[in-house]
Formats: sequence, C-alpha cells, structure tokens
Amino acid sequence: MLPAPARRIIQLLSRLPGVGEKTAQRFALELITDPELARELGQELVELGARLGLCETCGNLASVEPGQPLTCSVCADGRRSSGLLCVVARVQDLMAIERSGVMKGRYFVLGRLLSPLDGIGPESIRLTALEARIEKDQVREVILATPPTVDGEATALYLARELQARGLVVTRIASGVPHGGDLEFADQITLGRAIEGRRGVGS
Amino acid sequence: MLPAPARRIIQLLSRLPGVGEKTAQRFALELITDPELARELGQELVELGARLGLCETCGNLASVEPGQPLTCSVCADGRRSSGLLCVVARVQDLMAIERSGVMKGRYFVLGRLLSPLDGIGPESIRLTALEARIEKDQVREVILATPPTVDGEATALYLARELQARGLVVTRIASGVPHGGDLEFADQITLGRAIEGRRGVGS
Repeated sequence: MLPAPARRIIQLLSRLPGVGEKTAQRFALELITDPELARELGQELVELGARLGLCETCGNLASVEPGQPLTCSVCADGRRSSGLLCVVARVQDLMAIERSGVMKGRYFVLGRLLSPLDGIGPESIRLTALEARIEKDQVREVILATPPTVDGEATALYLARELQARGLVVTRIASGVPHGGDLEFADQITLGRAIEGRRGVGS
Repeated sequence: MLPAPARRIIQLLSRLPGVGEKTAQRFALELITDPELARELGQELVELGARLGLCETCGNLASVEPGQPLTCSVCADGRRSSGLLCVVARVQDLMAIERSGVMKGRYFVLGRLLSPLDGIGPESIRLTALEARIEKDQVREVILATPPTVDGEATALYLARELQARGLVVTRIASGVPHGGDLEFADQITLGRAIEGRRGVGS
C-alpha cells in the first residue's frame, strides 16, 4: 500500500537498534513530511563514512583527516597515562566513563563481548590487538570496564585470566548500589555485590 | 568530546518523533559503525523529496511521477466511492484504516488537530480545502475518524458543526471496548462510551 521509496526507507530505518516496523514507519512519515530534515540528514549520512571512522589505536570515534592515520581525541591527548588501560565493550561506554572525568589513562574498545550462547567465542574479540597494544604502550594496569551482565562478566573473567598470565595488574570496576539508589529497590545480586565489595571506611 | 560530524548527526536524529539525545546517540553510533547502512539510508533520504510527496487531493503519501500531478493510490482507484469521505488526522491513521479493509470511500488527511491549549485554532486546519473537496466530489457522508482524544474530539465536534450546517450526513467512528479487550481493565471513559454507544443485537 505504501509507495516503494517509503517502504525502502522503513526497511532501512528498522535496522537501527531498538527500532521496529511501527517506529520506523513513524520516523519515515516524519522525514517524508519534513523534506528539509530528510535532505540534511541524508547529506550527513552520505558523507559520514568519509568524515568519521574508528580510531586505529583504541576503536573510539575519530574524525578523518586527509593523509593522517585515524586517531581519536583521547589517543591524541599527550597528558594521559599510557600505562593505565581501560577496556570497554562499546564506544558508548567509553563516552560514559569520559563524562565521569575520573579516568586518566587510555582506552581499548572491544567492539563486542564474549557470548558463548550466541556462538561468540574468544576468537571473535580483539584479544591479539589488545595484547599488541599492551606490549607497545608498556601498560602496567588494565581496568576491565565491561558491563556487569552475564556476557560482560564472562568477558572480564576471560580477559583477566589471559592478561594476568602475562604478569599484568588487572582490575575490575566496582559493582554495587548506584549513587542515589534505594537499597529497598536494589535487586539481590546488586546488594550481594555491594556487601561483598565493601571497603574500609575512610580508606 | 564527540567529533563534529557525529554531533551534527545526533542533533538531526533527535528531531525524529520520540527520539531523545540518548537514543539519537545510539542511532548515530550504529550508523557510524555500519557505513553501508549509513550510505544507503543517506542516499534514500537525499532522493526522498524528489520521489515522494503528499497527494494533492487527500494528503496521503504519493509517488512523484514526472509531469503528473501528485496522486496517491487511493485517489487513483476508480472503484472507490467518492460520495463517502473519511477525515483523518494523520497519514498513519489512513494507513491503519486501510489495513482494516472496511473503508470503501476516499480520505482527507487534516495533517493536524485543533488544540486550543497549544494555540492551534480552526484557521490552522485545512477546512477550506476540505470544503472544496466535498463540493467537487459531491460527498454525501463524512466519517470523522480523528482519534478519541481531547484534541481529536474537539476537532470532530468542530468539523461536525461546520459540515452539518452544509446539509451533509456527518458520522463519527465508534468508541468503546476494543476487540479482545478486558472490561475489568478498560478505563471508565471507554466503558462509559461503550454503554452509551450500545446497539440493538442483530442490527
């Protein structure tokens, strides 16, 4: 019933994360009735590949500069410690940690987590690239900042074993009741971790 | 912290309905890490304005055919009755009614609803175009299929008064407990309408 160009746009939009057919249809109708937005967004998307890529060193977003290697703003920042490396699953996680302003080292974006149930085994994550990076930057401590989910914990455990075997200091981000959180509504695993991960007061 | 092209894309994506900054960021990262999707979607969006528009007669989506007036598939269908006109708020509503397969007449898309609280008064809806259409097509019955919301009801009430003054049969879609719905969980306004709108059994 829909004209072909509309169907094609809906099909492409429904490939965005969390967007189903209904939402894609709503987006498409908005774009059809706002031709200026469609044109501007279209132009940006067509040019995106030529203007933006992933940093060759860490996997963070980086602007393309003609004749230069792809380097992100974190890797280009000489004031950061190369000896401290924070391993995250996704670019979004890197950005969230950067917003906290606490991380003074550098990053490595895995791109994906181990997920044995989905057939994503150790060969699918960029362990070789991570090890080469650790070697090159003479990293002393690796912070595993994968999410506290089943896949995130499995990945952290696997990386910890591999990296500790190389004599590195490997740490894991703390898991517990979030700032401003209510103990009454925290789930039992979170509360269990908060108790297990307790620290001396004043330390 | 994000490179400029990424910020620009996030800003444009957050103009889509129901998309906030966080969701726009997720979409942008998906598009950045899937350059093929970005390129294809961008190309479609750039060409959208030249390929798709709103039907000059009813406001439904229509493919652009060079040298032809913009006419949608419903208006081009000669088997439909011109004497029965269904007035809807949005193209999405037209498509939903078409999916039911019950409507044998034609449509008129208002584009927006009256909303006195937001300063959208009668001058903002396409009443003149609607009246011209009714005149031209010699419409006998107008079905008001605006949504059963405050603004939808206000618009239906206003249109009913204007059109009844011209001697037209004006009807409103039924409002009541939806098919498969549970009376226990229906809200009181819906149940009130279901009782008020009761019909003789077998009629």
